[in-house]
Amino acid sequence: MPDLETALQMLPFWADLTEEQKQQARTGSRLNHYDRGAMVHTCDGECLGLILVTSGKLRACMTSEDGREIALYRLFEGDACVLAASCVIRAITFEVQLTADTDTELLVLNAPTFLRLSQNNLHVECCMYKLATERFSDVMWSMQQLLFTSFDKRLAQYLWDESAQAKEVIKATHEQIARDTGAVRETVTRMLRNFAEDGRVKLGRGSVTIEDAAKLKKLALM
Amino acid sequence: MPDLETALQMLPFWADLTEEQKQQARTGSRLNHYDRGAMVHTCDGECLGLILVTSGKLRACMTSEDGREIALYRLFEGDACVLAASCVIRAITFEVQLTADTDTELLVLNAPTFLRLSQNNLHVECCMYKLATERFSDVMWSMQQLLFTSFDKRLAQYLWDESAQAKEVIKATHEQIARDTGAVRETVTRMLRNFAEDGRVKLGRGSVTIEDAAKLKKLALM
Repeated sequence: MPDLETALQMLPFWADLTEEQKQQARTGSRLNHYDRGAMVHTCDGECLGLILVTSGKLRACMTSEDGREIALYRLFEGDACVLAASCVIRAITFEVQLTADTDTELLVLNAPTFLRLSQNNLHVECCMYKLATERFSDVMWSMQQLLFTSFDKRLAQYLWDESAQAKEVIKATHEQIARDTGAVRETVTRMLRNFAEDGRVKLGRGSVTIEDAAKLKKLALM
Repeated sequence: MPDLETALQMLPFWADLTEEQKQQARTGSRLNHYDRGAMVHTCDGECLGLILVTSGKLRACMTSEDGREIALYRLFEGDACVLAASCVIRAITFEVQLTADTDTELLVLNAPTFLRLSQNNLHVECCMYKLATERFSDVMWSMQQLLFTSFDKRLAQYLWDESAQAKEVIKATHEQIARDTGAVRETVTRMLRNFAEDGRVKLGRGSVTIEDAAKLKKLALM
């Protein structure tokens, strides 16, 4: 786990700050720990500021009025995100929900300090919009998956992507998979049983084991 | 219709360019006319550059492999858009399709010139990401409508929004309405008949007339 000074140096605009601005950033930031599953930012919560993942990972989603979640993107170690700072950025008129996917440590540059830096340093302002644009691309990718891919293909892609990170055994409940793939739990359960009957996967309690990777990959890439 | 010089002055970063850069912009841009329905940018077409609507309006969508269109946002007079310049912006990894919604005139700052200006002038770079971020907000709004609103409410909202621009008579075929609301034509036709039976609208050839605005609004805001 890095200390605050090391974390601050991971900020993409750190080298472009004046000494005085670096001092402001030091005073206006902190390292926050979140347990797995903890809510980092809610859609009606406080404006957090700029965040940077120093360890762990985050999941971003949007939530409908009836509580349905749509996965938008994920943030890994080293990733910065400005979408929990919509109060700082007038061009951002929506909110995302951020949840810790594992035990996670974040550098949080608070909103007033982030606002001040972005108003006084064009490099910070530029970087802020660039980070938003990168997330835009992530979101468009997720939306395309969601809108245009039939669910069997989407689930196969998801399992294939997850298995690349976690080897053969994916530790996730049907509820979690539903959340990550933008489906309801019943659909996930039905489709997973389908996959199990075809010999693509084996289902355990809170886990999915890849049995026939080639078959799964074929469906994912079809 | 403004001339090229007047159109260039509508660029949000015009005042921040040096005289030399203004000259580059003059040489690297043109005014293009598009007839209603003409394709301005396709997802596999050439990288157009930065565009600015000097008159008329554009519709942005994304298209699935099977040809289904999802409306993302619209551009009106004075709006600039950088999403047809993905070759200039590394952070943009997707393509949108742009169509002229009426007879439209655009200022097009070609991709090589836009790239050069954005590399040599931080204000231009900053503005480029800011414009992308604004479209991000538009897209998130559309997606929320699409994903979380049941279709009757969505159609009512659409008709309500359109009538605010076009008075009581909305000139649009069911095909066009389907495209704008991300539905298939059959669903639109069925729902419109439903609305007509309830006395909310009256259906004509290529038009929808609002009959009971209050009832429509109630559904739209429900």
